Amino acid sequence: MFKEAVYHRPKNNYAYAYDQETLHIRLRTKKDDVQEVILISGDPYHWIDGKWQTNRLEMNKSGSDELFDYWFCELRPSQRRLRYCFELNDGKEKITYTEKGFFETPPIHDTKFHFCFPFLNSIDVFDAPDWVRDTVWYQIFPERFANGDKENDPHGVLPWASQDPTQDSFFGGDFQGVMDHLDYLENLGINGIYFTPIFKAHSNHKYDTIDYMEIDPQFGDKETFRTLVKECHKRGIRVMLDAVFNHSGFYFEPFQDVIKKEHDSKYKDWFHLREFPLKTEGIPNYDTFGFVASMPKLNTENPEVKAYLLKVATYWVKEFDIDGWRLDVANEVDHSFWREFRNAVKTVKPDTYILGEIWHDSIPWLQGDQFDAVMNYPFTDASIDYFAQNKINTKQFSNVITNVLHMYPETVNQVSFNLLDSHDTPRILTLADNNKDRVRLLYLFQLSFIGTPCIYYGDEIGMTGGEDPGCRKCMDWDSSNQDQQLFSFVQQLISFRKSIPAFGNRGKLQFINDDNSPNSLVYEKTTDEEKVIIIINNDHKSNKVRVPKLANKSCKELFSQS
Amino acid sequence: MFKEAVYHRPKNNYAYAYDQETLHIRLRTKKDDVQEVILISGDPYHWIDGKWQTNRLEMNKSGSDELFDYWFCELRPSQRRLRYCFELNDGKEKITYTEKGFFETPPIHDTKFHFCFPFLNSIDVFDAPDWVRDTVWYQIFPERFANGDKENDPHGVLPWASQDPTQDSFFGGDFQGVMDHLDYLENLGINGIYFTPIFKAHSNHKYDTIDYMEIDPQFGDKETFRTLVKECHKRGIRVMLDAVFNHSGFYFEPFQDVIKKEHDSKYKDWFHLREFPLKTEGIPNYDTFGFVASMPKLNTENPEVKAYLLKVATYWVKEFDIDGWRLDVANEVDHSFWREFRNAVKTVKPDTYILGEIWHDSIPWLQGDQFDAVMNYPFTDASIDYFAQNKINTKQFSNVITNVLHMYPETVNQVSFNLLDSHDTPRILTLADNNKDRVRLLYLFQLSFIGTPCIYYGDEIGMTGGEDPGCRKCMDWDSSNQDQQLFSFVQQLISFRKSIPAFGNRGKLQFINDDNSPNSLVYEKTTDEEKVIIIINNDHKSNKVRVPKLANKSCKELFSQS
Repeated sequence: MFKEAVYHRPKNNYAYAYDQETLHIRLRTKKDDVQEVILISGDPYHWIDGKWQTNRLEMNKSGSDELFDYWFCELRPSQRRLRYCFELNDGKEKITYTEKGFFETPPIHDTKFHFCFPFLNSIDVFDAPDWVRDTVWYQIFPERFANGDKENDPHGVLPWASQDPTQDSFFGGDFQGVMDHLDYLENLGINGIYFTPIFKAHSNHKYDTIDYMEIDPQFGDKETFRTLVKECHKRGIRVMLDAVFNHSGFYFEPFQDVIKKEHDSKYKDWFHLREFPLKTEGIPNYDTFGFVASMPKLNTENPEVKAYLLKVATYWVKEFDIDGWRLDVANEVDHSFWREFRNAVKTVKPDTYILGEIWHDSIPWLQGDQFDAVMNYPFTDASIDYFAQNKINTKQFSNVITNVLHMYPETVNQVSFNLLDSHDTPRILTLADNNKDRVRLLYLFQLSFIGTPCIYYGDEIGMTGGEDPGCRKCMDWDSSNQDQQLFSFVQQLISFRKSIPAFGNRGKLQFINDDNSPNSLVYEKTTDEEKVIIIINNDHKSNKVRVPKLANKSCKELFSQS
Repeated sequence: MFKEAVYHRPKNNYAYAYDQETLHIRLRTKKDDVQEVILISGDPYHWIDGKWQTNRLEMNKSGSDELFDYWFCELRPSQRRLRYCFELNDGKEKITYTEKGFFETPPIHDTKFHFCFPFLNSIDVFDAPDWVRDTVWYQIFPERFANGDKENDPHGVLPWASQDPTQDSFFGGDFQGVMDHLDYLENLGINGIYFTPIFKAHSNHKYDTIDYMEIDPQFGDKETFRTLVKECHKRGIRVMLDAVFNHSGFYFEPFQDVIKKEHDSKYKDWFHLREFPLKTEGIPNYDTFGFVASMPKLNTENPEVKAYLLKVATYWVKEFDIDGWRLDVANEVDHSFWREFRNAVKTVKPDTYILGEIWHDSIPWLQGDQFDAVMNYPFTDASIDYFAQNKINTKQFSNVITNVLHMYPETVNQVSFNLLDSHDTPRILTLADNNKDRVRLLYLFQLSFIGTPCIYYGDEIGMTGGEDPGCRKCMDWDSSNQDQQLFSFVQQLISFRKSIPAFGNRGKLQFINDDNSPNSLVYEKTTDEEKVIIIINNDHKSNKVRVPKLANKSCKELFSQS
């Protein structure tokens, strides 16, 4: 047995509270090395006649990636306490894996050897809002979705869609425009809108905040926004805003004050400054987002800054009833701030969704005390590589996705923000070299996957566009330009997600690929009640796929396309 | 290369902020598999002409245990941000290990592949009080250390040391007794006292708290305690108290109120009750410590309970200037409570030491937001097994200790509470089968090890005693019974710890055992300025040991005994 490959450590993705009574336990072993894993566990204080009372529970293989097999079981300890070890059998030998290493037989004469989940305290249970599991998001870049009110158009506005956007162009998109098209969104079936920033800022993307307490006038005013949220809520659509708290814009008043008054500015501790005068050319002499002088990093450890940003965070929830915050560059802000942020926001509205923008492994932010979810870029990358660009094969794709599913607890996966593209990447149709069949497969996978999917505005009607600014074109409202078939396809998948629990977030996913058909992807989604099997041909030619699980089973064809 | 054995994950013991500017990076590989590891790293935003700017840094092998080698390096990223991967060379092939798996060459064309330490925010840096690193603790069980005031003796008190203790006996130890012997403690050289509980309770051990706001009258009153702390501080001795916050005693007023008034008690949500009437025989129908009916688990999620316990926690710090809290059964209380506890206590006195009683892997409590340290039982177990009982050999001992040192960040190790025994275990001399040479070796290892060592009262003069109550005998103040040689030995080691930085907490430890001398233990403790080499013969007969590191070096013999 390859002992060095065996891994477990409690209180992360390997052992966590699924709910207030249930523990999930996972184990990693070398791929194809171990045949059977038994969890041996008991209450640490449950001894009878000098013998620790333990139970044996067989674990199931929940997936495999390139190097490893993953094993899973769940249990409900009556006293909410657990000590445990793993008995591994490779067909030749049985060994026991404990916190103190490997033993020939389970060292159950003393609990001190064993992994420990000491107490399942309710307050520590990761607890994301329920509604997120059934939400399909639609991302709107407000400047480019629809111009519903000419009165608030910014200076130098261009006629809608009259040309391709540049870094600096304005087309006048606004809140009224969104309201004018809520029927469209409702018809598509989405039930959440994620807006990129809407606060006062000079740029068209508004990531350079000037005032976090004001709506940018080009989008409308606070009353328009209040109406927009209400109209969304009437239709069962949630609203998430973008919080850029890592850094402010250059024209944020406190930063301007620092530039002017230097040492005398009462805001000089609001940023991370190294010396005066501030140097905005070349590498700045103050901390910034990247090396961008116009985006000074906020000192979120300063109590005044914290108080200000927490006021912002709660104001928009309390006053406008928004449902979520997407946190820009969330990984560079301190954990301590995010813990206070969570407390503040959840106190005002307990089911607010808190979504961090993090591109890498995010387990330190997903322990229940900070974020509900992160943007699932590993999902994005793998999906684009496989479906859009054919850069990886079925085996590689299944490996990466299985790995992604085992990186975090199931509770986290169910609310993971699964995007295919955004205002920061080329659009999927462009990434797929204008092949709409590939876009269909992307949507099929995204919408049958675990997590909360997000559609980037216009992708659903076949819009194209490369890197920023290309991907930020005006939404095309000319129905003759819109791909109605693609729209219907997405609409149908969204409806499946709602009507068939196993298709959506309630189904556990397992790959059951046919190795003899290397360009086909086969996976099942399973609940206690039903099983959905999805067979995808990711090839330009037809393929035969064997699905032994379907042999001699009656099943209903949900849907098929060639 | 054995890829499956390679492990790294940021923001725990594998990558952490050592101080406000320095990152420590560790990697695990299969034992004796890899010859060289290079850390390739850069600021994620530092690109020139489309090329990510990276540096190469060779990592050092910091130790090996039974299955693995551990690699280490430290660096100070100028912008406090880091993305990184590892290049591994086993002499036959070079491969690169990234967050996304293994690659033949470093995928530095895109930072998305790489491990990430996104920003070194000061407030998140693990920051235990500096003084702990230079503290040698002395554990006092107050009922048994010295009876200095006959006036406060409890009913039925027995003459001092007149007989062996039982579960229920009282001998009248008190605060005045401790004060009477501060000269003794100062002479020994300790500079911290850890008191087991002192609050009002019926038992002799006082773990069954009746009133957390009152001193038990058998020890004195608040004024005596205030004087005791002041007298300790005058001599540079810190004071740590025991906080039993997981559960109260049976006679804690709120619990008595619940027993009497049941549904009508205003305290019914202070505990975890399942039904009325409360069942105190057999398995209780409410949550308890273990299955002990007289120790009802407190509901630390209830804001009233939280407010009460945080008042207790801050009261003794603020009013009596204590220096530390040792948290009983700390692992079964919710993380959320401990975060608030830390904030509350550190607000009152920032350099209070917070020590959790946890027997298993404690990384979830040691991220900087909860505890400063835990009681280092893995160190205890290994030391007893090796030095006291000869149950494991030198190789096994070195493996376990190396593993212990790599379980947590160095910052955590430096304040780890290293005990050899306590009121809950037999005394070391008894564990060592009355062999004082073995006790000497235990002390030598403990006092030259990384962490903050603790001496259990009376061990230093050769007291014996088995499991509780045997280990709780009265301190023997008859100097003719005290082993003065052992006392002097401990005294000398404590003085080394203070006068020779490399001997104590400032030296990095590495084993340099001589495989041809299997019962000898050899290790070096190194600072930038000096190196101490310690050679221990853990055998009943003499042994020859080769220490190649000493060849042709001039060195000073600190100390030698046979």
